[in-house]
Amino acid sequence: MCPAERFPARPWAPTTVPGGGAITPPIGPLVRPDRGPAPLTSPARLAEFFAPRRIALVGASETSGWSRFVFAAAAAAGFSGELIPVHPVHRTVFGRPAVRRLADLAAPADLAFVMVPTHAVAEIIEESGEAGRRGAVVLASGYREAGDAGRAEQDLLAGRARELGITLLGPNCLGFVNVHDGAAPFALTLPSPLTPGPVGIALASGALAGVVLGFARSRAIGVSTLVTLGNEAMVTAADVIEYFVEDDRTRAICVFLEDVGDVARLSAAAERADLAGKPIVALKTGSSPAGQRAALAHTGSVTGNDAVANAALRQLNIIRVGSIEELLTTASVLAYGSRPQGRRMGVLTASGGACGLIADHAHAAGFEIPPFAPQTTAAIAAHLPEFATVGNPLDVTGYFLANRREDALTPIDHALDAAVADPGLDFVLFAGVTLPETRPADERLAAQLEDRFAWLGRRIATAPIPVVCLSPACVDVTNYARDVLTRHGIHPLGGIDLGVRAIDGALRWLERRGHVRTLGPRPHASVSGSAWSELDARMFLENFGIPTVPADLADSADAAAVAAQRFGFPVALKACSALIPHKSDIGAVALGLQSAAAVRAAYGQVRSAAEAATGTGIEGVLVSPLRGGGVELLAGVTIDPVFGPVLTVGLGGIWVEVLRDISLRLLPASSSDVAGMLAELRGHALLTGARGREPVDVDALAQVLCRLGEAALSLGDALDCVEINPLWVSGTRIEALDVLVVSEKGPAT
Amino acid sequence: MCPAERFPARPWAPTTVPGGGAITPPIGPLVRPDRGPAPLTSPARLAEFFAPRRIALVGASETSGWSRFVFAAAAAAGFSGELIPVHPVHRTVFGRPAVRRLADLAAPADLAFVMVPTHAVAEIIEESGEAGRRGAVVLASGYREAGDAGRAEQDLLAGRARELGITLLGPNCLGFVNVHDGAAPFALTLPSPLTPGPVGIALASGALAGVVLGFARSRAIGVSTLVTLGNEAMVTAADVIEYFVEDDRTRAICVFLEDVGDVARLSAAAERADLAGKPIVALKTGSSPAGQRAALAHTGSVTGNDAVANAALRQLNIIRVGSIEELLTTASVLAYGSRPQGRRMGVLTASGGACGLIADHAHAAGFEIPPFAPQTTAAIAAHLPEFATVGNPLDVTGYFLANRREDALTPIDHALDAAVADPGLDFVLFAGVTLPETRPADERLAAQLEDRFAWLGRRIATAPIPVVCLSPACVDVTNYARDVLTRHGIHPLGGIDLGVRAIDGALRWLERRGHVRTLGPRPHASVSGSAWSELDARMFLENFGIPTVPADLADSADAAAVAAQRFGFPVALKACSALIPHKSDIGAVALGLQSAAAVRAAYGQVRSAAEAATGTGIEGVLVSPLRGGGVELLAGVTIDPVFGPVLTVGLGGIWVEVLRDISLRLLPASSSDVAGMLAELRGHALLTGARGREPVDVDALAQVLCRLGEAALSLGDALDCVEINPLWVSGTRIEALDVLVVSEKGPAT
Repeated sequence: MCPAERFPARPWAPTTVPGGGAITPPIGPLVRPDRGPAPLTSPARLAEFFAPRRIALVGASETSGWSRFVFAAAAAAGFSGELIPVHPVHRTVFGRPAVRRLADLAAPADLAFVMVPTHAVAEIIEESGEAGRRGAVVLASGYREAGDAGRAEQDLLAGRARELGITLLGPNCLGFVNVHDGAAPFALTLPSPLTPGPVGIALASGALAGVVLGFARSRAIGVSTLVTLGNEAMVTAADVIEYFVEDDRTRAICVFLEDVGDVARLSAAAERADLAGKPIVALKTGSSPAGQRAALAHTGSVTGNDAVANAALRQLNIIRVGSIEELLTTASVLAYGSRPQGRRMGVLTASGGACGLIADHAHAAGFEIPPFAPQTTAAIAAHLPEFATVGNPLDVTGYFLANRREDALTPIDHALDAAVADPGLDFVLFAGVTLPETRPADERLAAQLEDRFAWLGRRIATAPIPVVCLSPACVDVTNYARDVLTRHGIHPLGGIDLGVRAIDGALRWLERRGHVRTLGPRPHASVSGSAWSELDARMFLENFGIPTVPADLADSADAAAVAAQRFGFPVALKACSALIPHKSDIGAVALGLQSAAAVRAAYGQVRSAAEAATGTGIEGVLVSPLRGGGVELLAGVTIDPVFGPVLTVGLGGIWVEVLRDISLRLLPASSSDVAGMLAELRGHALLTGARGREPVDVDALAQVLCRLGEAALSLGDALDCVEINPLWVSGTRIEALDVLVVSEKGPAT
Repeated sequence: MCPAERFPARPWAPTTVPGGGAITPPIGPLVRPDRGPAPLTSPARLAEFFAPRRIALVGASETSGWSRFVFAAAAAAGFSGELIPVHPVHRTVFGRPAVRRLADLAAPADLAFVMVPTHAVAEIIEESGEAGRRGAVVLASGYREAGDAGRAEQDLLAGRARELGITLLGPNCLGFVNVHDGAAPFALTLPSPLTPGPVGIALASGALAGVVLGFARSRAIGVSTLVTLGNEAMVTAADVIEYFVEDDRTRAICVFLEDVGDVARLSAAAERADLAGKPIVALKTGSSPAGQRAALAHTGSVTGNDAVANAALRQLNIIRVGSIEELLTTASVLAYGSRPQGRRMGVLTASGGACGLIADHAHAAGFEIPPFAPQTTAAIAAHLPEFATVGNPLDVTGYFLANRREDALTPIDHALDAAVADPGLDFVLFAGVTLPETRPADERLAAQLEDRFAWLGRRIATAPIPVVCLSPACVDVTNYARDVLTRHGIHPLGGIDLGVRAIDGALRWLERRGHVRTLGPRPHASVSGSAWSELDARMFLENFGIPTVPADLADSADAAAVAAQRFGFPVALKACSALIPHKSDIGAVALGLQSAAAVRAAYGQVRSAAEAATGTGIEGVLVSPLRGGGVELLAGVTIDPVFGPVLTVGLGGIWVEVLRDISLRLLPASSSDVAGMLAELRGHALLTGARGREPVDVDALAQVLCRLGEAALSLGDALDCVEINPLWVSGTRIEALDVLVVSEKGPAT
């Protein structure tokens, strides 16, 4: 077992090394700090913050668009509490009496919604503190996103709010919308009606709030609270996630991120969400160089390497999606109804075209559409005309639509009734929920429709397996349809492409549950790292139980020849020096030497090349046997500026260089994590015996890679990079053929 | 130059071989048949067919749902012509006077819409003919999709219609909707309103018509005519495409296909569409095994291998998409406004979040977002607050929304004005077209909005580069917004994900224009193919100018040793026999023989193994030099049951076996086609000098592969497969190391 598995909660702690080798002294904090929220941003505090009954609108004015929006938002959300304008000059604002200063309020407001210019914000926060306000939303921009001075100003603001006991959302944010409680201190247009529901939303880009709520409305997806995060000076995405985890009205969490902020805090929130069974779905920008530029311009965030972000979100079981539509649709699959427990799907449609499209998308996403059990087929066939083909996917055909019925139920409903009892299915995708756009004028027909959907709602609620409903295209659910569907607890996904992607996202979340761990603080890359000599690097890794190829340090041609003869030919020679990390670039490496004479000659060449490059500092020349056959891997630990230490593993040669076939994990990683990394490589088959190769001992390999991570972490904040390239594997034999360690401090002596 | 390039119109014609080698006699048709539509399905005839003014509804009855739908569809489409029920019993149907038989009509109807049961259809067609009807739509099912008897019945029906001069749509179809002319003989619910416009639609699955038209309405995409194809007994998808090509009101064509039908006919239609500049966008099912099952159940089509379908559609410059939403959105990009000519995009948004998302999607799809020219930046900056960052992608921020304006134009409009003049951009993606859901009650505001959109419409129409408008999410365009946008010629795409994919699809179409060629008739796979002896296969390919590795046919161990000495060691031996296509499986191959003694020994073993496997029929043992280094490819021609002869090219080893890295083209393929195949291989870099390899003569390689296609086609209908595996390439040296030919007839003697 890999040490990380034994001490998952203390990733930076020292480790004992199998085999009793020397222990490199750990650098960095030994005690894992608490990664939970601070008191001012605790779930309990935020529950209060997000449900204000008295809101002071500081800086409200009829000439300000923001003010107009805030009053309109309160109306859209049906706010029944008090909105009190605070303005030094105006006596009324939009018909409401204003006070001059916060201190003039008869009783403290629950929340100050601060719309004053940037330069006046600090004073308002002071006044808030004096007036006993416990919460403030700050709209003004010109902080972190405006460079170093702005960042300092922001830190000052947050620090002062902390001292005054004020929970601060923003700055540079638009507020929030608590749909359940009808509180919407929010400064842009809101779509109407807002439907309360189980999806909590946190957005780094406030201007997207209207778009997100508009899509939610169009698909009848209910929202608990939407929070715009702004610059996250105090309340962060992680805090809002933890609030949602504790909020009984929220069943799934959507976040739009431009950066991940404090990775350790986010991981703690993700762990809590995973334990609580509340999925987090994330839309994160920054996968393109231009996207990174946009994020910089917007909030001044540092956006890390996107492949690392991908790996990190996966590790935290945060479902990463690609669009606003997918964000909400994926959350709705998990927020409504019961959750599919596997990938075997029954498909019921009223069109052969939809059947084919669903099958294609499902196949691409890794779903299985198994044949129905005989009893299911028989039960469905009883309700279809003789010429119909009963199979999975099922097309009941438009036939039933054209035949007047006395019964409220249609053949596809009977098919649903049968399919949910099929023992070979994990869930049913039901594309039979199309409603007319408006209530039929014919009362009998309207009543029949109502009966049908009431039956469907009951059948779905009591079905032994989940039923996911699907509309054939992504168009708005009309008011009439939304009313009928919502009343009966039916929540169709918007379109085949989006719907199948959302179910796939939901399944990925379910499949990865239970493995999220809170990460420790992430060390930064050292700015002045230098390479160790290969001999030091080899010893360092050997002490962590990583096997290296045998090597002798020779200081003469004769010694080299003797060593070569002992190892057997062919051998390799390379100069050993801390000053030459890339030896082959300068000719300080000789490979495939077949005789003592060749070794002697090569010794001179390698030594001369190294000395020509560095002058002195050559420790000698390393002689090693040459390995052939087997598989070569690349394995390394580097420091991502956002995510900290990352383990990268790939197959050597074209796999990395041409195909970029690599797998990443934030450290620490257990050996089972690493086994997962190997399994996700496209070239994985080469390890398990493809093309007549000998299968590799994957467990042993995973342990070695796991120890590489341990070794790298033991360097703490001094770590810059540790790399094995290649790591040679042949059957059960594993050897690091070439190693590199770069750190701020040199090797421990 | 490869022969196929010289005779593109006669792909099956005999070819002269460079170097004056023997010519294999061509088999199969020498004369290319006309691939245009038959007179009854010509564009002119269909133009008449799709614009009926008098429609006889044969079998109309108030007890039939179909009839109800047809009357409702006529109302939804605003049909102003005559609907005449024809029924043997009913005197009126839904209030309209009925006639008993078609012959009883005072004047012939333009179209018979036939809703009678399957067994009565043939008689109605006879009556139609007698009554001088020129067109019929047949709803009844139970034909091709019902097996062999149904298929025969369908052939009979179509044949009789042809004799009677009747254009027949269906059977098993739901009719069509001509939106411009308001003619909708169509038997399911239609969404209302129907907006006339430039997108023509043909659907293999009639039940999807409502979904497709519903999505078109939701995104304000106007439709010219929608046709449901049913079983395509006479009128096929290709015919409808050619009708759309000639139809001035159609600018882009959408097709939903379950199978491609007659590939040669489709290719002719695709060539005409490409020449006319009318893009075809296709949604085709069958990419999954289950999808293929669904298609079979639905219309009894044979769905071919999906990778071949992908290659074929690409070759025909038909844009393949993955969803109904993408089908219409892609068509709308190409149907409305001017078309982007390149991938350098300017991006204008009012939200940093949208900026980042667009940048990410654009990057993934291969778009470039270059920095603005200095004059563009300066012009935009003049309209933004000082703290705003001006760059591409541009976020004008929500700022402007919150400030009352006297001017109708907003900062994002001024940014558009500047960006369209930027010399470094090919088009502008403009996400600034959000409208309120309803007309503002404030008349001044409503007029200001109208002025703004009028200005935008004019600016877009006169801009030197195309402007593609984008809504931030895929939600319905409201009636008010549809009205304003359509009036000013503005057609926003529905959401970032869908929008960027659609623009990418449009660009792919533009990039591939001008290369579509009508394909000849596609031979079928022979059922009784047998392998040729390797010596015959080698000679056959050599006659087409394909270099093969030197080989001597030895009939004794001594002769083998002499040949080996002449070639130089190491050599390979393999048994030569038409009866052993896979020699290495039975031990009839020996590789890496280093001496005459080894060759002698191996001769005996190889010969024995071959004789043990086949008894007699051994022509001898082939001796060849062994090749090393370089790159090995796999190249072969096989017959796809739908698409006919297909050339497959891939890199050997893991590339094909682990990564499935292959490229396909329907034959004939020119050497530039083949060069394109090589370029799209993921391992292409291995051919151009990656990892220190010697670059390969790609032009010469492409010519050899092109000749392989020629050789295969020369076998005509007898062709089963021709394969070179491996094809060895090292610098300028190219040699087929192992070849296989399987055909119905043996080699020409």
